[in-house]
Amino acid sequence: MKISLINNGFEITQNEKQLLVHTTENPAIFVGVGQEKMEIYRGNFDIHDYIEERIPLRFAKITDNIVEFSCGKDSPVQITMKITHQNNLDALLSFESQNQHLNRFWIRLSATQNERVWGCGEQMSYLNMRGRHFPLWTSEPGVGRDKTTEITFLSDKYNKAGGDYYHTNYPQPTFISSNHYACHINTTAYADFDFRNNDFHELQIWEIPQSIELYSAPTYLDIVEKLSLRFGRQPKLPEWVYNGIILGLKGGEENTFSRMENAIKKGVPVAAVWSEDWVGLRITSFGKRLFWDWKWSRKRYPNLEQKIKELKQRNIRFMSYLNPYLCNDGELFPIAKQKGYFALNKDGDVALVDFGEFYCGVVDFTNPKACEWYKEEIIKKNCLDLDISGWMADFGEYLPTDNIYLANGVEAKLMHNAWPTLWAKVNAEAIAEAGKTDDVTFFMRAGYTGVQKYCPLLWAGDQSVDFSRHDGLNTVICAALSSGLMGNAYHHSDIGGYTSLFNNRRSKELFERWAEMAAFTPVMRTHECNRPDENFQFDHDPSTIAHLAKMTNIYRHLVPYVKALADEASEKGYPLQRPLFVHFEQDINTYDIQDQYMYGKDLLVAPVHQQGVTEWKVYLPADETWINVWSKQQVQGGQFITVAAPIGQPPVFYRKTSKWSDLFAEIAAIK
Amino acid sequence: MKISLINNGFEITQNEKQLLVHTTENPAIFVGVGQEKMEIYRGNFDIHDYIEERIPLRFAKITDNIVEFSCGKDSPVQITMKITHQNNLDALLSFESQNQHLNRFWIRLSATQNERVWGCGEQMSYLNMRGRHFPLWTSEPGVGRDKTTEITFLSDKYNKAGGDYYHTNYPQPTFISSNHYACHINTTAYADFDFRNNDFHELQIWEIPQSIELYSAPTYLDIVEKLSLRFGRQPKLPEWVYNGIILGLKGGEENTFSRMENAIKKGVPVAAVWSEDWVGLRITSFGKRLFWDWKWSRKRYPNLEQKIKELKQRNIRFMSYLNPYLCNDGELFPIAKQKGYFALNKDGDVALVDFGEFYCGVVDFTNPKACEWYKEEIIKKNCLDLDISGWMADFGEYLPTDNIYLANGVEAKLMHNAWPTLWAKVNAEAIAEAGKTDDVTFFMRAGYTGVQKYCPLLWAGDQSVDFSRHDGLNTVICAALSSGLMGNAYHHSDIGGYTSLFNNRRSKELFERWAEMAAFTPVMRTHECNRPDENFQFDHDPSTIAHLAKMTNIYRHLVPYVKALADEASEKGYPLQRPLFVHFEQDINTYDIQDQYMYGKDLLVAPVHQQGVTEWKVYLPADETWINVWSKQQVQGGQFITVAAPIGQPPVFYRKTSKWSDLFAEIAAIK
Repeated sequence: MKISLINNGFEITQNEKQLLVHTTENPAIFVGVGQEKMEIYRGNFDIHDYIEERIPLRFAKITDNIVEFSCGKDSPVQITMKITHQNNLDALLSFESQNQHLNRFWIRLSATQNERVWGCGEQMSYLNMRGRHFPLWTSEPGVGRDKTTEITFLSDKYNKAGGDYYHTNYPQPTFISSNHYACHINTTAYADFDFRNNDFHELQIWEIPQSIELYSAPTYLDIVEKLSLRFGRQPKLPEWVYNGIILGLKGGEENTFSRMENAIKKGVPVAAVWSEDWVGLRITSFGKRLFWDWKWSRKRYPNLEQKIKELKQRNIRFMSYLNPYLCNDGELFPIAKQKGYFALNKDGDVALVDFGEFYCGVVDFTNPKACEWYKEEIIKKNCLDLDISGWMADFGEYLPTDNIYLANGVEAKLMHNAWPTLWAKVNAEAIAEAGKTDDVTFFMRAGYTGVQKYCPLLWAGDQSVDFSRHDGLNTVICAALSSGLMGNAYHHSDIGGYTSLFNNRRSKELFERWAEMAAFTPVMRTHECNRPDENFQFDHDPSTIAHLAKMTNIYRHLVPYVKALADEASEKGYPLQRPLFVHFEQDINTYDIQDQYMYGKDLLVAPVHQQGVTEWKVYLPADETWINVWSKQQVQGGQFITVAAPIGQPPVFYRKTSKWSDLFAEIAAIK
Repeated sequence: MKISLINNGFEITQNEKQLLVHTTENPAIFVGVGQEKMEIYRGNFDIHDYIEERIPLRFAKITDNIVEFSCGKDSPVQITMKITHQNNLDALLSFESQNQHLNRFWIRLSATQNERVWGCGEQMSYLNMRGRHFPLWTSEPGVGRDKTTEITFLSDKYNKAGGDYYHTNYPQPTFISSNHYACHINTTAYADFDFRNNDFHELQIWEIPQSIELYSAPTYLDIVEKLSLRFGRQPKLPEWVYNGIILGLKGGEENTFSRMENAIKKGVPVAAVWSEDWVGLRITSFGKRLFWDWKWSRKRYPNLEQKIKELKQRNIRFMSYLNPYLCNDGELFPIAKQKGYFALNKDGDVALVDFGEFYCGVVDFTNPKACEWYKEEIIKKNCLDLDISGWMADFGEYLPTDNIYLANGVEAKLMHNAWPTLWAKVNAEAIAEAGKTDDVTFFMRAGYTGVQKYCPLLWAGDQSVDFSRHDGLNTVICAALSSGLMGNAYHHSDIGGYTSLFNNRRSKELFERWAEMAAFTPVMRTHECNRPDENFQFDHDPSTIAHLAKMTNIYRHLVPYVKALADEASEKGYPLQRPLFVHFEQDINTYDIQDQYMYGKDLLVAPVHQQGVTEWKVYLPADETWINVWSKQQVQGGQFITVAAPIGQPPVFYRKTSKWSDLFAEIAAIK
């Protein structure tokens, strides 16, 4: 990257491409003062900013690699920027504020016509973010996420939870541009990346950020490789994961294990059974909730210890559930409270968070001793010592910003976005310290910069149990692809979705379509959803169990290929699920497709994500001959085609030239 | 008012009360640059601003009565402010921009705890605006106007028309503070008055405004008197208005006049019949619409000329309907087009506005010749020569801001807010030129600064046919009170409301409650609503006609009192309907009441605006003995009481000391 002086300013370019330009007339940096208003309601945030000042820093004085920005020639310097070239291709812009009042920062990067931008963590609605702005703040993603739908309206009205296109459990101030560079901002403050302008991208941060990293590379895959090195690569998934499906079952010992046995009897290969309610239940007016006191409930699972042993001998694992809160009526709460491991309120008491008729303390992960305690007492003693092989590490998005004080002395509004990574770190370190990284895993929905290093597996969060555009099956694909570009190699989702509210109920068709997609992801896992009794379950219908068995067999059949992808993920950081364009940069048609994906280099998957269809329109990238795994038909790439897509035959194609052709050719015969 | 130098700045005070303070640390004025995005859909605007710069003007150099504002001591002057004392009590702050790039302006006036602010034109939801901000842009007010209601959700979804609490046909950049001053800004640009802050009111204008007027006075009524002088006073209503009700009837000659005769036969005193469809109909997929070609439809009303003569002999007038558009398939359109009287698009063609399956030209009221033409050809020839005695002068809020060019060369976004007053002026002048101001009237929903001078009578616009908080019966009271404080003496509404959408239907109860309120306003008028056949009408039920006859008789009974109020309106500019606090400044309880009003000094009206109630809670101001017009019970003021409020007996009280006691005492006996 090159910095050059131009008339009244300077520019940063890479290979003649302008990344940033600053002149007196069109300054690249603005600073200011804002007063935010943040209201939290059960993980949903209502955030408003009152911008009191927004000052263009028109004047830039350049000395060597230091730029001093001010309003005018004789005005005091507001911020300094130091440009460090990491190497030819990358640059680091480090900022220092010279005015303590400033708490808002805007920087404009150059944009070009037809440019696409991708990333910003795990985005559910839009893979290409151009034309929209993306507030970056970890939160509940919302129910419906579309202000024109009834379900979003009702969720907003009754639970402040409707959400919008940009709400996500996992935001990240990082994007990749089709101009072959990536930009990452080192901050955990609230940010808003605005890609609506023709000539520039404006990145807004609610502090003067520490630094901005710019990476360029000849191909998108090279950029992903760089980012995955930067943010950290995941360990491989444990071998046992590939044995079959992870069945999400709860309802106590009898219900859980009898239904598991039934599934096995009906031919479903089971890798693990995952029981959230291993900790017991709490009855609220909302319904059955888990008891947030992270230890084995002997009442609900009286023979669990023995059961885990038996299952393991049968090559079936047991998985559990954890989150970073402790309910104030549990056994662990008084211990953590006595030790001072909770975040506090302004009166110095434990800051209690309302989760709906019960209250919890927030284990303060900015306190190293609290982390140690959680690792030792909860993860190692209560999970690993019981031979639990993994868990959902839920939440991470809820750190309140009001009336909460942390051990490290940093404001909660600056730690809020950092929380998911701290939570991931606690989990990963506990497993590593026990020497079990190869054999125990966990999965998270929340994330932020650096979660890549600790979280081995993302799950897409709590989709609605439907085919809706902004909260249904298809959003999982967008989530996998965007987070994959950020260096998260492994992604999966709740088969059938999770959220059933306002009479929205999971159908057999939805479950089966979702399972078809899941067969072509690194992990298959079911979830009963939030209202199990009112929604379709995998074992409600013999034909669905048979369908699930078939899909799990396909999943198992693909294991050799998937393991090769896992090798690639370890070596290069490539995600298993990838946008088409990373392998077909020259085919412009691939750039706006977000409901198909490459599963590795050789498989193209186009999940059916609409109700009641038996055909599906698929784009096949140019300069390749594709083979339909079901019909074996060969199709020349570079065109949209419509294919038969009955239940049980999700549109999947492979490259004719693939070295895995024989493996793929066998898919159609699997039962 | 006094301007004084203080440390690092200056302040403007009145009687020791600080109105504005400016220091280097807390500047009073900010300027900047914004890029607005305005999308119009049938009178509903979606407006967003991107604030590119917002610069505090910290440095103020004061020379005599001129203040030069800049960012710093040695920075260029951005704006100058000239302070002119009109007299001891008032001041004029005139601004001049010294930087042509500036298009945003913010000024902070001092605020105090417990201060109330009222006005901003005709507000439908909140009389006291403290704690909220109020964008000021004339538009459709919206259907539902409450984002938590289903009807607002559906209106937003299908018509972009849900609206919000601040949407109004008649905004005005003027407010009255309980600190005994009024502030008015001379601008027609988009503005947003923000009353959310504890220490200051921040007034935002999308231009450097010409000037700010500050008025102070010892009492609120004195302030209203000043404002009404400033903005212009209405002529008295024609005498015939007081003869009875104005019946809104359409459906052609036979239907209109037979239903009128029926009403008269059933004892309803009729002052006028008002037929919107005098111009004929257009059938669209939405339903029956008027034909926007402003002349008598001989097809629909074959004997109208004769009929008007006959009615007048019976002391009944005929009223019609006009608006400022002409449909492009009417007879007037080609004439106006040929003369060049329409606003144009960028290609120099007539700018056509979509009104739903038909298109209209906008008569360009910035062209004096176009105004003359409208006055002569439409108002004088087509209305007054036919002996029409008045009309609804509808619309005024729809001037698009995009791709429309006006004769005076001013940008449409700066003329948009000015349009209602231009439209009122055309109507008023035509009537005045014909020498008929005493005998002909018109009523408008749209307004802006100066509409007071031209529009003799406001109507509250298109409420929903319900009791809803933000779009129902009660909003009419807030509308009358806020606009009254701005110097609009005469206000009325559609009895029964207008908008019936999404299965919201007018009930008999709603109609009767609304009629009860209307009896205590200067004009009673019914409207069939937008879907006459599906909604309750005054003649659907014998008991409703009887109720309406009684209410109209009460209205007629009050005429001597109302005429005395009209004298007061002419002499002092006091509105007929007034907030309680203007007569009870010392009673703090009166300040937050917006659903009761003083009808003149002596009558207190508390309309029932909820469904299914037979009792009503009323506040009676302190230091007065009140007499219930129905029960004759005497009640000491300074308390909330609950009174019987059956249909037919709206809660109304009069001062025991009133010189009109005898008149009021007779109300209960009226049938």
